[in-house]
Amino acid sequence: MIKHYHSIETIAVIRSPFKEKFGIPRQSGLLPEHHCRVEMLPPFNTPDAFRALEGFSHLWLIFMFHQNLGHEWRPTIRPPRLGGNKRVGVFASRSSFRPNGLGLSVVKLEKICQSDGNLSLEISGADLIDGTPIVDIKPYIAFVDALENTVAGYVEEAPGNRVGVHFSHAARTALHRLDANQYPSIEKLITEALAKDPRPAYQRLQESREYGMRLYDLNIRFKGYEHHIEVVSITKA
Amino acid sequence: MIKHYHSIETIAVIRSPFKEKFGIPRQSGLLPEHHCRVEMLPPFNTPDAFRALEGFSHLWLIFMFHQNLGHEWRPTIRPPRLGGNKRVGVFASRSSFRPNGLGLSVVKLEKICQSDGNLSLEISGADLIDGTPIVDIKPYIAFVDALENTVAGYVEEAPGNRVGVHFSHAARTALHRLDANQYPSIEKLITEALAKDPRPAYQRLQESREYGMRLYDLNIRFKGYEHHIEVVSITKA
Repeated sequence: MIKHYHSIETIAVIRSPFKEKFGIPRQSGLLPEHHCRVEMLPPFNTPDAFRALEGFSHLWLIFMFHQNLGHEWRPTIRPPRLGGNKRVGVFASRSSFRPNGLGLSVVKLEKICQSDGNLSLEISGADLIDGTPIVDIKPYIAFVDALENTVAGYVEEAPGNRVGVHFSHAARTALHRLDANQYPSIEKLITEALAKDPRPAYQRLQESREYGMRLYDLNIRFKGYEHHIEVVSITKA
Repeated sequence: MIKHYHSIETIAVIRSPFKEKFGIPRQSGLLPEHHCRVEMLPPFNTPDAFRALEGFSHLWLIFMFHQNLGHEWRPTIRPPRLGGNKRVGVFASRSSFRPNGLGLSVVKLEKICQSDGNLSLEISGADLIDGTPIVDIKPYIAFVDALENTVAGYVEEAPGNRVGVHFSHAARTALHRLDANQYPSIEKLITEALAKDPRPAYQRLQESREYGMRLYDLNIRFKGYEHHIEVVSITKA
């Protein structure tokens, strides 16, 4: 009587400067500067399906953690905010390594764009990787979704900025050469992403280690120190 | 490069007194009295997967609108709150008739129950039908999920109670004969469900019409009037 398997379909795809998971501040809403686009696929790109959506300021996106699909789920995960060495249950976390690989993010609806039979939504506040498949879009309704007096265990507080972010002379020069239209708010985007400190907790003391992050088609190389991160270089991929 | 179809699996099943969609006040949180149970299916019933969940007061459930699967989606729907005769886009609604048939509800976690290798979650505030397949459980995290200053178009306000609810003599007698342990808060549950007026708007002037609703194994028969609903009879199915 219970149907055990369900086939669901990609209805839209995310276009975002974030090309990979490493470096994206987790949980939506932390990077208000950062706009991305929900490109509807046919037949879901019909304007009728979005009638009255312009009256809503925020949306839920249900999506697939597509970079993790194929990984087997484990009952526990190690959340970064617990330093990466304490385990909690996968259903007590928003981890991307989870049964069915479904993600949930609330985003701000900036604009509904139509042209030449295409329909896309310009959104902000999303922490989604480029190419993420969207499987549902729902309006955010405060009287059901915005609860007061809830308790959220080990994730009670928003993660603050952990470290300062400095740019090397080479990185700053490269930054200034970038076209501001092609890479909007790029300095702020890099700074906000790195200030959350994407390094795994157990690597934070390894000062010599260099890391890479992709934003748009840029390779951002950076080094971590105890209280700051230095952006070493910014090059086109 | 984009994967278009995804197979997802039922990880748990809802046990609820609501046996059918008709009569359930839509949107979760409107019936705090009403407890139901999320019964985890193996292998998702391992206690490890719920470690630290007891620290959270509320959960998101992502589920399948299983009674509608197989229906084709349409770009627009007619939301009951607009009187049933105005159309909005399916993505501007939380309607159950939608591409992929995914539902999203926040519920209160009352208790994590383990016995004999079974694991279930006792929850309240859910508007879910008995047998609903759950495909994900996530903790509710206020600093990302509870937004302030959002705008929600045509669903800005919580639906109030629309009508008074009266019980016929026969219905009240039947009510008093019910075992309070087997049917907890049954009078309140019926009253709260019917006060939202489940009748389609265009039928509200047809006074002679009788309706049925199932709660637990009970058949609730009721008649609608302009300003009240009368519960005519309550019988075991």
